[in-house]
Amino acid sequence: MKTFALIVAGGSGVRMGGPLPKQFVEIAGKPILMHTIELFSRFDNKMELIVVLPAAQSIFWEELCRRHRFEIPHQVACGGETRFHSVSNGLELARGDGIVFIHDGVRPLVSSVTLRRCFETAVQQGNAVPAVPVSESVRWVENGLNHPVDRSKLVLIQTPQTFRLPLIQAAYRQPFDPAFTDDASVLEKTGAAIQLVEGNPENIKITWPADLRLAELMLETETSR
Amino acid sequence: MKTFALIVAGGSGVRMGGPLPKQFVEIAGKPILMHTIELFSRFDNKMELIVVLPAAQSIFWEELCRRHRFEIPHQVACGGETRFHSVSNGLELARGDGIVFIHDGVRPLVSSVTLRRCFETAVQQGNAVPAVPVSESVRWVENGLNHPVDRSKLVLIQTPQTFRLPLIQAAYRQPFDPAFTDDASVLEKTGAAIQLVEGNPENIKITWPADLRLAELMLETETSR
Repeated sequence: MKTFALIVAGGSGVRMGGPLPKQFVEIAGKPILMHTIELFSRFDNKMELIVVLPAAQSIFWEELCRRHRFEIPHQVACGGETRFHSVSNGLELARGDGIVFIHDGVRPLVSSVTLRRCFETAVQQGNAVPAVPVSESVRWVENGLNHPVDRSKLVLIQTPQTFRLPLIQAAYRQPFDPAFTDDASVLEKTGAAIQLVEGNPENIKITWPADLRLAELMLETETSR
Repeated sequence: MKTFALIVAGGSGVRMGGPLPKQFVEIAGKPILMHTIELFSRFDNKMELIVVLPAAQSIFWEELCRRHRFEIPHQVACGGETRFHSVSNGLELARGDGIVFIHDGVRPLVSSVTLRRCFETAVQQGNAVPAVPVSESVRWVENGLNHPVDRSKLVLIQTPQTFRLPLIQAAYRQPFDPAFTDDASVLEKTGAAIQLVEGNPENIKITWPADLRLAELMLETETSR
């Protein structure tokens, strides 16, 4: 079965002249986005790779690839106004049937075990979304008040959200709805039930400076193995 | 105003002969619990420190203190059947009026800014609970089904949960209720409104091996400053 990875890096909001977008920050010697791409290529070296980048960043990305002699073949799709539009643009470059992993460019720590689980469940059930339990107490905040929430019923959703390609392509042809917070919510609106699979807790979305340091440490350890 | 820190380390479930309880794992040269105690002592060197440990661990802790020449004065209270009983036992050792920080022994990365915010809000409002936004999508799982939850309404709760001492002592005299998931929920049952303050995202509860490595990295950086 054909496999695709659609790696989404950066929203449309990144302005030129601002600080370096996170996907380009170097850890363990190269930009985060390259680590992420390598993960998928290592998992399956026949995978078709599509990277979605804001239009204003594509020249810079090409230059980074030259400078780092980054030679894993991949297509580049143009980011849209929202994540929905970005994924939509990327999915148009995928042809045929198969399984597509839709992944955040700034999650370089997904494990091959998680990828395997996602793949197998998506083959059988049409979709697979990795999730991990919540290890903190949780509260609901609304109108200045807050109350506890039963965290045992909650899971944190990671990526790659993984789909049978034609199903997710059809789902992304729906009109945009601001309630779409991730790919699972887009598919869900077509009536499909979302299949949760176990994620790996290290698979963080790099958001805070502390995350950057953790990712650096873990990728350096991996590289030196 | 008097200040107290009640540092809760380890539930009752830790069996002798099992792997080393997390609070005793060494990072940056000493047990996590010592880092946590030092945090509070550095924040306010007049703070009264109470460490709650399972009874079976107290001798081992004394020995660790000797071996590491750990000389920050602190009382040791005996852990109970549940976290509720442990905190309850610890609170009995605190006398007078003041502010008490109730903190997880395995959170050695709370910042002094967070401690300051907790202290000030607890002085003014009677309680303060640090919280951080959720950076992942969230789903609710029940009866084999799942649906998305609006994560912008959710916050993750950290410690130190901070209280005016007599208020939390009175709250802990209520009968035990399995719905008590943390100190805030115990106080809340007396009718008090919980005051959320901004936490610091690095203030993780060490739960996974990846957390241990992050904490190690951050504490080593701090030590070498």
